[in-house]
Amino acid sequence: MSNTKNVIVAQSGGPTSAINASLAGVLQGVIDSSEYSVCYGAVNGIMGVLGENYLDLTKKAGENEEFIDVLKKTPAMYLGSCRFKLSDYKDDDSQYAFIFSQFEKLNIGAFFYIGGNDSMDTVLKLSEYAKRIGSDVRIIGIPKTIDNDLCVTDHTPGFGSAAKYIATSVLEIAHDTAIYPIKSVTIAEIMGRDAGWLTASAALARNEYSKAPHLIYLPEVSFDKEAFLDDVRRELEANDNVVIAVSEGIRDKDGNYITASESAIDSFGHQQLSGAGKALEFLVKENIEVKARSIEVNILQRCAAHCLSATDIDESFKLGQKAVELAGNGETGCMVVLTRLGNSPYTVEYGFESIKNIANEVKSVPREWINEAGNDIKEELVEYLKPLIQGEVSVEYKDGLPRYADII
Amino acid sequence: MSNTKNVIVAQSGGPTSAINASLAGVLQGVIDSSEYSVCYGAVNGIMGVLGENYLDLTKKAGENEEFIDVLKKTPAMYLGSCRFKLSDYKDDDSQYAFIFSQFEKLNIGAFFYIGGNDSMDTVLKLSEYAKRIGSDVRIIGIPKTIDNDLCVTDHTPGFGSAAKYIATSVLEIAHDTAIYPIKSVTIAEIMGRDAGWLTASAALARNEYSKAPHLIYLPEVSFDKEAFLDDVRRELEANDNVVIAVSEGIRDKDGNYITASESAIDSFGHQQLSGAGKALEFLVKENIEVKARSIEVNILQRCAAHCLSATDIDESFKLGQKAVELAGNGETGCMVVLTRLGNSPYTVEYGFESIKNIANEVKSVPREWINEAGNDIKEELVEYLKPLIQGEVSVEYKDGLPRYADII
Repeated sequence: MSNTKNVIVAQSGGPTSAINASLAGVLQGVIDSSEYSVCYGAVNGIMGVLGENYLDLTKKAGENEEFIDVLKKTPAMYLGSCRFKLSDYKDDDSQYAFIFSQFEKLNIGAFFYIGGNDSMDTVLKLSEYAKRIGSDVRIIGIPKTIDNDLCVTDHTPGFGSAAKYIATSVLEIAHDTAIYPIKSVTIAEIMGRDAGWLTASAALARNEYSKAPHLIYLPEVSFDKEAFLDDVRRELEANDNVVIAVSEGIRDKDGNYITASESAIDSFGHQQLSGAGKALEFLVKENIEVKARSIEVNILQRCAAHCLSATDIDESFKLGQKAVELAGNGETGCMVVLTRLGNSPYTVEYGFESIKNIANEVKSVPREWINEAGNDIKEELVEYLKPLIQGEVSVEYKDGLPRYADII
Repeated sequence: MSNTKNVIVAQSGGPTSAINASLAGVLQGVIDSSEYSVCYGAVNGIMGVLGENYLDLTKKAGENEEFIDVLKKTPAMYLGSCRFKLSDYKDDDSQYAFIFSQFEKLNIGAFFYIGGNDSMDTVLKLSEYAKRIGSDVRIIGIPKTIDNDLCVTDHTPGFGSAAKYIATSVLEIAHDTAIYPIKSVTIAEIMGRDAGWLTASAALARNEYSKAPHLIYLPEVSFDKEAFLDDVRRELEANDNVVIAVSEGIRDKDGNYITASESAIDSFGHQQLSGAGKALEFLVKENIEVKARSIEVNILQRCAAHCLSATDIDESFKLGQKAVELAGNGETGCMVVLTRLGNSPYTVEYGFESIKNIANEVKSVPREWINEAGNDIKEELVEYLKPLIQGEVSVEYKDGLPRYADII
């Protein structure tokens, strides 16, 4: 044991339902490893290292044999999160010096950061700094984002569960809207920022008795109000109740967001979006005499752990384990990735890619997977999405509610 | 068989996740009965009778042995709904004459109407008319409403599943909001019109590690902006992330809805509500320097059949069966009701009550079940609510999505 080192794991960015499955995977990986001993969890991402705020996760797992299994199915970040951008070490390396002094103090051999694009920026910077100072601490990123907008990996942990929740919700909305024998338009606004993956997953709600969503608008195609109204009028001729899935991030041909409300900028320079659904609802009401309403598919789409994709949770867990294995093998400055080997049967390979090829890049839905009119997706995209929502996770219930790991 | 009569069942009002369980219960009751033969389903409520639009549900159940079980777990109204108020027969009895001529034509012995307050108005009128013309067709109401605002019955079918969805969502929102080490206020706007039952059920989200929702505002207590802001400031001192549950129907002391948007009147004279959550979000943002957001717990709260209460579905089914039994025993002009016999163990009795005592009355949350400050509920209400969300229903999945009965 005296030769083994410890690890720190942390979580960053916005919540998903699967980010704790990757945390559980790292913890399991450390427990099973001969290279590493204690798995520390830094509270609130890299800020936890800067503030010396840690949990001993190995100890927690030792005290409670159910801990890893419950953690795996718990939504949001067990360790808390942050939106904290490290300064450029060429300008000021004091944060870096402190972080690596912490690594030394705690005998850290590897640092795992579970997060999205912005978190991979932190992985990139820390691994570059490690190289610069000659540190052998491995720095490895584990992806997560419901937006599925990370490059290189076939898809991101958290996306499948969000997609399953969205498809389930749109199917249930189809049942709900079908009850009155009057014409109506229902618009579901879905997250995903500038990428249309999540909104596209609404298409999985279609089945042998329901064509909802009848129209799908992604941010990858510029939004035209007149074409939209024509689409809606045409669908209303063929159907009583038209259901529309729209991305929060749709824009007009000049790049302006279609939104009914104010916008702001977060600390990473992303525009905070809201109101595309409302904007479309108003458009329909003003131009077509029909009952219209919009539904903001709210934050439940990223935290509804009562509706997990088993495929997603299984992959997220295994990516956590893979990261520990890679660190043990001496890899650093990389992110674990999923490569799809095939759809029938669906199989993936767990690998890794240099972080330089990933950080700060955004993966959009390819234009060729969207139909020409820009109001629906093509079969290729459905085939891509379908495997990711397969399988259900049996969450344990207590007193009628899901039993999750506690909030620290 | 030649002595048996047939029945018509129909559904009306807004959707719930349990209204098809009662439909399944009626169908099962008819199949098991020696009094009745064919169970017709009228499409779109009483309008289906007026338009001679029926399904032969007995035949459907005969053709597909899974039909009743799948129907039981399918959200919204399998038969479609309507919001149709019968005219007063004293003014014009032409609709009534047509309905009863249909009953004769189809050899109907009983008519079952599954719905809320407005539907019970139809049951009342039809049963009075039946008496007036000397018809022996039994007219029986089966309650449903997520609002739980019907009198006489301990609670209404559909409420338990909606309450379970809301409590689950608020728990997941608590996990989601807890991740950042900054002060924040999250407001969940919940349905229920002028009754606070659904909003109160958010309190069931509380557990040993989470106090969310920290504040609860019901329409039964007039809303005071200054008191609200004081409440929020106080809770922010004790907690980082304050979660608030608020009814869509809160009003100020003069009876004006607290809303950020326009209002309209539906055909039953109910004011259409929206915007209480947004209004409170704006109030917090304008008066307290803190991150605030509001979440409209959307129509999923009435149609999320992927998150059913087993207690609710079981009771809803049995009430359908009970209605058939009552009709067979010669009862008419009544609604089936649930009477609670006790909480430990939770037991109910299935009975009935004259429709005259029910129609057009609204049941509010008793003031003594709300705390004095009007910003939380008391333990008595928690004890009332808790049994109603117990138990999970295992919905069947196909291709990653719940398998529901088709949309007709």
